[in-house]
Amino acid sequence: MTSRRRRGERRVTIEDVARAAGVSSATVSFVVNDKPGVRLTDGTKERVWRAVEELGYRPNAMAQTLSRGRSSFIGLVADAIATTPFAGQIIRGAQDEAWRHGYVLLVANTEGVGDVEANALAMMHEHRVTGVLYSTWYHRKVEPPAGLGELSHVLVDCYADDPDVPAVVPDEVQGGRLATTVLLDRGHRRIAFITSTEPAPATFGRLAGYEGALTDRGLTLDPDLVVAVHPEQEGGYTAAATLLDRPDPPTAVFCYNDRVAMGLYDALRERGLSVPGDVAVVGFDNQEVIAGHLRPPLSTVALPHYELGVEGVRMLLALRAGELEPPMRRLITCPPVMRSSV
Amino acid sequence: MTSRRRRGERRVTIEDVARAAGVSSATVSFVVNDKPGVRLTDGTKERVWRAVEELGYRPNAMAQTLSRGRSSFIGLVADAIATTPFAGQIIRGAQDEAWRHGYVLLVANTEGVGDVEANALAMMHEHRVTGVLYSTWYHRKVEPPAGLGELSHVLVDCYADDPDVPAVVPDEVQGGRLATTVLLDRGHRRIAFITSTEPAPATFGRLAGYEGALTDRGLTLDPDLVVAVHPEQEGGYTAAATLLDRPDPPTAVFCYNDRVAMGLYDALRERGLSVPGDVAVVGFDNQEVIAGHLRPPLSTVALPHYELGVEGVRMLLALRAGELEPPMRRLITCPPVMRSSV
Repeated sequence: MTSRRRRGERRVTIEDVARAAGVSSATVSFVVNDKPGVRLTDGTKERVWRAVEELGYRPNAMAQTLSRGRSSFIGLVADAIATTPFAGQIIRGAQDEAWRHGYVLLVANTEGVGDVEANALAMMHEHRVTGVLYSTWYHRKVEPPAGLGELSHVLVDCYADDPDVPAVVPDEVQGGRLATTVLLDRGHRRIAFITSTEPAPATFGRLAGYEGALTDRGLTLDPDLVVAVHPEQEGGYTAAATLLDRPDPPTAVFCYNDRVAMGLYDALRERGLSVPGDVAVVGFDNQEVIAGHLRPPLSTVALPHYELGVEGVRMLLALRAGELEPPMRRLITCPPVMRSSV
Repeated sequence: MTSRRRRGERRVTIEDVARAAGVSSATVSFVVNDKPGVRLTDGTKERVWRAVEELGYRPNAMAQTLSRGRSSFIGLVADAIATTPFAGQIIRGAQDEAWRHGYVLLVANTEGVGDVEANALAMMHEHRVTGVLYSTWYHRKVEPPAGLGELSHVLVDCYADDPDVPAVVPDEVQGGRLATTVLLDRGHRRIAFITSTEPAPATFGRLAGYEGALTDRGLTLDPDLVVAVHPEQEGGYTAAATLLDRPDPPTAVFCYNDRVAMGLYDALRERGLSVPGDVAVVGFDNQEVIAGHLRPPLSTVALPHYELGVEGVRMLLALRAGELEPPMRRLITCPPVMRSSV
């Protein structure tokens, strides 16, 4: 490989396709990756695919990379690969976008253990990675580990105190607003929110979104309808007693996550109440193994893990190119996934 | 790094610890990795930890690797990182064992797409991996892709027609036998099996284990108690009607997986039947987000994904060293995870 040859090349990028199709590059990504849960019109899809064909864009640019010789690495340090499929979706998004740009993803799983993390970062350093994505499996504030500072990095699904540290996280406020609006649009006015006792961005953000959606329709948040629980099935089950055994029970419940909704379903069934006939339910996370298979299947709001991985790589490459523009902390939209519980 | 220096070193291996403690290296791995679901006596644990300390064994040998200079790669090609946490557990096991031996894991996620797989293998080849683990997220027979033949490889959670292709898979027969025995030990004699309609090794193996356990106790398999369904919640729910609305219903049910058990739970609740009082239930998979949080929490049999990853790396390194001994197709035990449903 000579630098002359590299200069002579002009790779078709996702941005080229986006320009030609008159859509955002996120939309192109959704179309070429056939993202479930993202609603696009057939017209949009056709325009994107036509542009893909006309320009000869190859979503998996690995073959192009290989033709240029040994590819460079982007590191991904993740804290919980084995516990949830969420880390897997971040990996998939990051890998797809890295390959598109001719990079290989070097993944290290740390399970949150400090010295494993230090070793992982040392390994990344040793392999001269272009930069590192540092990701957590749930959205939270982190203290970036010491070794991270020596490498270009972007935080994925987490953020630092310092607002100038590049980070990409889900838009929890928008997600909470969306979940509540779905219920408001079906005519519900007494909408409960089973929230979490954990002081996490998801807790604050989804509550703010819930209140914002109510306010938009001239409603006021009723504190009696907001119950905080440990955000697991057991929490959803116990919250039902507080919410339903009262003179004016809610007609709809927004659950902090799909696991809470699963517990709530059990409690409703025990009371002989049907979903959505007696109580409409919306979850959060789109944890497929649960949400897709409850009786009835759960309408929910998806966490955009795939897109977090994609955007993390884009930010990292822009950072390396000296082209990363504000905002440094970016929010990714949480899309609705409608099933049968509202 | 010089080869002289490398020759001069004598790294403490997991086998050294196993010999010193008088246990298998699998046991050492379980202890140092603090595996949940594996029952070991305190005496065993103490012996292992004493040997670890005396020999100076370091489970995370990454630091040693780094001191020797750039480490070598082991590739892991996985087909479904984003869909289940199972692939993550294989990754974690493979990474831990690779690091212990001074290798870095290069992970590629293919989602089962042929050309992505080909690209991933080409990338592995380009980076001169020591070998490749080729893994699937559920146990099945595979047609190894063309590019795999050019690299040393071990199949993980899958196997080829040719019995000489190194492979490591869960022991489905033992797992099915275990699930059934758990119920037999509680005095149940009419034990149903909700199995899968999919022609997979898990289907055949677990059924053979179920029948074997019954036969061991002088019981005969009653075909009316074996119902095949699509192995999801919906299947477990519908199977309940076949099994329970009959004159002599079973007192216990072994479910093909935890998702089937979740659907069965719903059907039992609708009939006013309690678990385990009226019907005892055992699942399979130990899919934590479900099994740990059903009401009551589900007793199940775990799939040994972490151990599959560990053994895959061991077999690959033995293969490269010309020391891989039969059997080429190895079975890993599925351990019990007892909760409250039996």
